[in-house]
Amino acid sequence: MDSRRNRQVVLVYRPVGVPEPRHFEVVSSPLPALGDGQFLVENLYLSVDPAQRGYVNDENNYAPPVPIGAVMRAMAVGRVVESRHIDFQVGEHLYGWFGWQDYWVGGPEALLRRVDPAQATLSAGAGLLGINGLTAWLALHEIGRPKANNTVVVTAAAGAVGSIVGQLAKLAGCRTVAVVGSDEKGELCLSQYGYDTYVNYRHPLDEALAQACPGGIDLFFDNVAGSIADTVIRRMNLFGRVVQCGTMSIPVWIPPPQGPRIEREILTRRLRIEGFVIFDHIARFDEAAAELAQLFKQGQLHYAEDIDTDLALAPQALVDVYEGRNRGKKLIRLRD
Amino acid sequence: MDSRRNRQVVLVYRPVGVPEPRHFEVVSSPLPALGDGQFLVENLYLSVDPAQRGYVNDENNYAPPVPIGAVMRAMAVGRVVESRHIDFQVGEHLYGWFGWQDYWVGGPEALLRRVDPAQATLSAGAGLLGINGLTAWLALHEIGRPKANNTVVVTAAAGAVGSIVGQLAKLAGCRTVAVVGSDEKGELCLSQYGYDTYVNYRHPLDEALAQACPGGIDLFFDNVAGSIADTVIRRMNLFGRVVQCGTMSIPVWIPPPQGPRIEREILTRRLRIEGFVIFDHIARFDEAAAELAQLFKQGQLHYAEDIDTDLALAPQALVDVYEGRNRGKKLIRLRD
Repeated sequence: MDSRRNRQVVLVYRPVGVPEPRHFEVVSSPLPALGDGQFLVENLYLSVDPAQRGYVNDENNYAPPVPIGAVMRAMAVGRVVESRHIDFQVGEHLYGWFGWQDYWVGGPEALLRRVDPAQATLSAGAGLLGINGLTAWLALHEIGRPKANNTVVVTAAAGAVGSIVGQLAKLAGCRTVAVVGSDEKGELCLSQYGYDTYVNYRHPLDEALAQACPGGIDLFFDNVAGSIADTVIRRMNLFGRVVQCGTMSIPVWIPPPQGPRIEREILTRRLRIEGFVIFDHIARFDEAAAELAQLFKQGQLHYAEDIDTDLALAPQALVDVYEGRNRGKKLIRLRD
Repeated sequence: MDSRRNRQVVLVYRPVGVPEPRHFEVVSSPLPALGDGQFLVENLYLSVDPAQRGYVNDENNYAPPVPIGAVMRAMAVGRVVESRHIDFQVGEHLYGWFGWQDYWVGGPEALLRRVDPAQATLSAGAGLLGINGLTAWLALHEIGRPKANNTVVVTAAAGAVGSIVGQLAKLAGCRTVAVVGSDEKGELCLSQYGYDTYVNYRHPLDEALAQACPGGIDLFFDNVAGSIADTVIRRMNLFGRVVQCGTMSIPVWIPPPQGPRIEREILTRRLRIEGFVIFDHIARFDEAAAELAQLFKQGQLHYAEDIDTDLALAPQALVDVYEGRNRGKKLIRLRD
């Protein structure tokens, strides 16, 4: 048994909808000794992501829910500080499923990507070159397939994924339209993320969309679902593509909420709607990260971070993300 | 002016939902003389298709609605009986937008496909080698992309499209499951169309689907939309494909009916849902028809027709199709 203590954010109650601080507790436990083939990761940056709501709910998702009493599932960038695995050396930086905690012990199964400090800052490894940038790059290019002069609408457009999607679509020669929940975020989209225009969904959305997209919509990158998506879909052009990347506006899916049916829209507009989960594409992470890192170095991508520095604040940070209070990729920095 | 009279089924009232005989009248008018570049087609087989509902409704669709007072838009197989166009010879058989009427006058813009009597019967040119077979072949292969051992669910499975889809999916090595509205149609699916099993949606569908598809559903060829589709989609496997080929179970789309939202299903199951309209694929009609004709000649495709012989019955035939009373492709034969 290692004498160091490991602070962990543990799930103690099963939430319905978005988890809140009361669903978690911070506990401190001793570190287990390393087994053969294991290594010890000291976490540097913990990721705070909308998808974490799905990790703790008893609803259909792409992984079983976090058990009660277990450390909160999360991605993080960390440093190998001890190793009994031949492929992992002390001092290396990794991005993986290391949880909301100080330390992680285990084998290569938790690895998402090795982080190269020469590509960008370590924190970018958890965002721009991590889940958010990789999602933006792979979902936009694999499913959305932007063409020059396409009109592209992005929801949660100022968010950690949406802000990158908008910039990548612009680099692909598209006209980009941000959907946001405040004029402040809309201005951010124009000034920082290169969007051509924005609409604020707290005002009548259909009229604003009609004005913002006089030629209709070719590609809809949707992070929110719900009534906003209903409105966008009804303004899509023939052969439009919809990337279903998130469902952030709908807090509870059991029972499924009702909405206007879209089968007729899909049929008559020949839409293609496709779901995207980044973990299907791990084999392409390094390729996409290299592209993103190069664009970033060339000054062609703007990327913002919103960093807290207290492990105990992680649950509140997740609530903030759901309520749109973050200004860039939300991270918890534990050490440098 | 030609002295022959042309009987025409004309739209006289704009229906909401499925058109009925009272929305039409049969009129008789003189034939116009042929202009340069025009030809005269004598209709032999008129097509009766669920999609015709959309042609007469003021709802979003893939073509403007038939004007009041105009002949009902319909596909037909006919014979050229006069021609002032160098590419169209008297005696040739054509499949095109010739309407519910005895004769059609115009240019090549109405042509869908030239019919080769050596490939199959002339009536098959309006069904198996026409809209229905072409839809089945192209939608299944282009969007559905069946793989060996996939479980494929088809709605309106005994219909003119569904019956061919089931057989083509079976030929591709799939397990095929018919969704039908009666046990009589279910038995037809088993005995005539090679389905492995069927479920009757008038009984509790979810339990029946669970039994019929113990390994989940990989490909959903949907002709009906609505609550049947809701149930099927919730039993789909990861990376499942949905071909949205029709929306026959929903009679009225303005305002859009409500249903359970599917964004979360699309996301977490990584579904791909795509709308299919056959007229986007005219360039591939001859290729697909040749494949279908060959399978038919080899006895690998069973194809049924349900033929009336009175032009005035066409509107009632459309109601019958919507109510599932036809037994095979519905046609009106005007002459041989």
